[in-house]
Amino acid sequence: MSTENDTTRGGAERILIDQIRAAVEAGDAAQLTALLEPLHPADIADVLEQIRPQERSDLLALWGGEIDGEVLSELDESLREEVIGQLEPAVLAGAVRELDTDDVVDILEDLEEPAQELILEALEADDRAAVEQSMAYPEYSAGRLMQREVVTAPLHWTVGEAIDYLREHDGLPDQFYHVILVDPRMRPQGYVTLGRMLSARRNARLADLAEDSFRTVEGEMPEADVAYLFKQYHLISLPVVDAAGRLAGAITIDDALNVLDEEHEEDMLRMAGVGEESSISDGVGETLKQRLPWLGINLLTANVSALVISLFDGTIAAIVALAALMPIVASMGGIAGTQSLTVAVRALATRDLTSSNATRVVWRELTVGLISGLIFALCMGMMAWAFYGRDIWLGAVIGSAMIINLAVAALAGVVVPLVLNRLKLDPALASGTFVMTLTDVIGFFSFLGLATLVLL
Amino acid sequence: MSTENDTTRGGAERILIDQIRAAVEAGDAAQLTALLEPLHPADIADVLEQIRPQERSDLLALWGGEIDGEVLSELDESLREEVIGQLEPAVLAGAVRELDTDDVVDILEDLEEPAQELILEALEADDRAAVEQSMAYPEYSAGRLMQREVVTAPLHWTVGEAIDYLREHDGLPDQFYHVILVDPRMRPQGYVTLGRMLSARRNARLADLAEDSFRTVEGEMPEADVAYLFKQYHLISLPVVDAAGRLAGAITIDDALNVLDEEHEEDMLRMAGVGEESSISDGVGETLKQRLPWLGINLLTANVSALVISLFDGTIAAIVALAALMPIVASMGGIAGTQSLTVAVRALATRDLTSSNATRVVWRELTVGLISGLIFALCMGMMAWAFYGRDIWLGAVIGSAMIINLAVAALAGVVVPLVLNRLKLDPALASGTFVMTLTDVIGFFSFLGLATLVLL
Repeated sequence: MSTENDTTRGGAERILIDQIRAAVEAGDAAQLTALLEPLHPADIADVLEQIRPQERSDLLALWGGEIDGEVLSELDESLREEVIGQLEPAVLAGAVRELDTDDVVDILEDLEEPAQELILEALEADDRAAVEQSMAYPEYSAGRLMQREVVTAPLHWTVGEAIDYLREHDGLPDQFYHVILVDPRMRPQGYVTLGRMLSARRNARLADLAEDSFRTVEGEMPEADVAYLFKQYHLISLPVVDAAGRLAGAITIDDALNVLDEEHEEDMLRMAGVGEESSISDGVGETLKQRLPWLGINLLTANVSALVISLFDGTIAAIVALAALMPIVASMGGIAGTQSLTVAVRALATRDLTSSNATRVVWRELTVGLISGLIFALCMGMMAWAFYGRDIWLGAVIGSAMIINLAVAALAGVVVPLVLNRLKLDPALASGTFVMTLTDVIGFFSFLGLATLVLL
Repeated sequence: MSTENDTTRGGAERILIDQIRAAVEAGDAAQLTALLEPLHPADIADVLEQIRPQERSDLLALWGGEIDGEVLSELDESLREEVIGQLEPAVLAGAVRELDTDDVVDILEDLEEPAQELILEALEADDRAAVEQSMAYPEYSAGRLMQREVVTAPLHWTVGEAIDYLREHDGLPDQFYHVILVDPRMRPQGYVTLGRMLSARRNARLADLAEDSFRTVEGEMPEADVAYLFKQYHLISLPVVDAAGRLAGAITIDDALNVLDEEHEEDMLRMAGVGEESSISDGVGETLKQRLPWLGINLLTANVSALVISLFDGTIAAIVALAALMPIVASMGGIAGTQSLTVAVRALATRDLTSSNATRVVWRELTVGLISGLIFALCMGMMAWAFYGRDIWLGAVIGSAMIINLAVAALAGVVVPLVLNRLKLDPALASGTFVMTLTDVIGFFSFLGLATLVLL
């Protein structure tokens, strides 16, 4: 039992990592163990993620025998296969056997067939059966998140009976927060928090202490919906049932928190056109694989914008100042589109943007686009008139193009994700590139088109 | 006790909102109550967020008397002040009195002075003192997140003594997951999960059941660091101490989950140049206030790019095709910069990018930038040569500019947030606009500059 108040990372952590590197380089196993032993598994996983691949494999060769299942579980997915491949089968088996079934499933998911088999064989028969049942649920479903270890009690029990049962029972889960009340066919009927159980008399009936609000989900429910339920209803754990309504397991809030975090990451990375599995510990090859596709798509869409511009070759040849001014219109549209898009993607993710308020939000975006268009049209129109000389018409052209492009941008920023969402696609998917292309094309076309009509 | 499996939002929810709207329009208070009564407070808050301001005020006039403190607590901050302003003081007082102190603090934070006073006066004396003590901690600190209601036991107690105490004690918190062990001076020394207490014998000593790993934080710790601890160490609750090490309260995981969610939202919105308080239920005025500043800054930076282009007026006049091609170079740089930036901002937020691996990540980004620059330089060089005629030198110019810009973009995407972070600024703040401007300027300058040297 130690009180740790050190959360100032940075300095202290860097010194520790340097010491660990030195111990690995010196091949000093005793020193390495002394350094790693006091660390939380999550922090050991962080150390493995922060050092170079060669250092990692040297570290594992020196210390791998003492690795803990929790460390594997905390490790970034992009490194797990590499680390598991470097462990002795016996060590791996030992490490995995300590874990709750949901953590085993989480590790198995990302492994290739032979490595999966290796781990399954290491488990005891009933754990293996539980893991295999979870793996039978679709990827990213409630069934994959749940742990099989749950604490149940018959509906008719009293607090005293439940406490006596818990005292006699070995193999309870590491952490549990509720006793789930079940009927004789193992269908969950409610749950009692441990706090209420502890503060009630021994003869109180569990059914009378059950929480008012009780939800269960089916194993097939997508994990994003599960995470939403935890966040919306402040749940701590959520029982999972099979198709017949029988209890199959329970999901705890730490798993929901991870899902929420991964969903965030996916949204951010997808909007930026980065593969959603990107990680800071990826090598150059992996990073290129994640990024080249969207750069390639952007090369094509940028060529569309270029095509639009080249339609107006003659106009630009006549008034070269247009070439300098046109990216301003496009860039303002890009920013306005990104602003509107980001708010919409986020609101769809948190389910604050729904069919009930979509029309209102679309109108708001259009109004905001028009008003900000007007404001910046005035500013830019006057700047163009002042600095790029010519008559007042150049200012009028850039101003009008600005209004058009900012209105289209704000509108597209909310309509594109809404349409993707309606089509059951991820609203974050590529909307960034799409909105940017649109605002570029509209920006160049409206500005150069108006210039051709008005200035020539 | 009801089993709810309905998480299919959309259809069912829209019908409900339409029914609620109809009841409000008809002034049918009984029907409105019948519709709202079965809903979870979080869902009632969602209804309030989804309807129009006028409907909201009509709904509150009809039903406001029955509003629950939880509904206020669940409401989006942007609406809270509006809703609170429409409630009768007596109703508000009743609603607030039911809440845990951390929820009261959360509501108070966003209110103006007179509304704060109104709520403080509604509280009982000891709750008011607790709330005022929390409010004395800085904004966004652990002290503001904690609830004062905690369950403690002396270090020397047995399980039996603790259970007897809990049974006799009224006013326990709604939800608690641990008993915190304290020394005679109220300094926390460890904690026991309720699960372990329930499964141990009555004569077991609490100190022997305490969790291996035990952390406390000081009330001044920033909430982002608190959320990090919960995520990293899978905590359920975290005791908060004052400067003298005495127990001041405890933070529970649902609060940490909210902070994590808000931090993520802030990152996304800041990167997009949207004020971090943006909400989908904001009106036009509020939305403009959030978005105009960054659009204004972008207008200035876009004019810098325009200035760079106008340096090459003569070159463009001589070869008009350059005007069409130059946005391609800038746009590719923009995408590459955004990709690298997003991964870096995210990794800084999750603390995966640290001083131990920063150098390696910077080198990786530079390598990735150079390789993808080479690949797209070849593609685009050949396309330019094929479609925009002229000699092979136009292809060579656009290719070289592409390599330069993609390398600079990838590098800037990681260096800018690292520098902001080192300066103790939020890495997400404005890095989007900054990186975009940089890639535009470098893109235009390198392309037009090379063209001037090579093609004229």
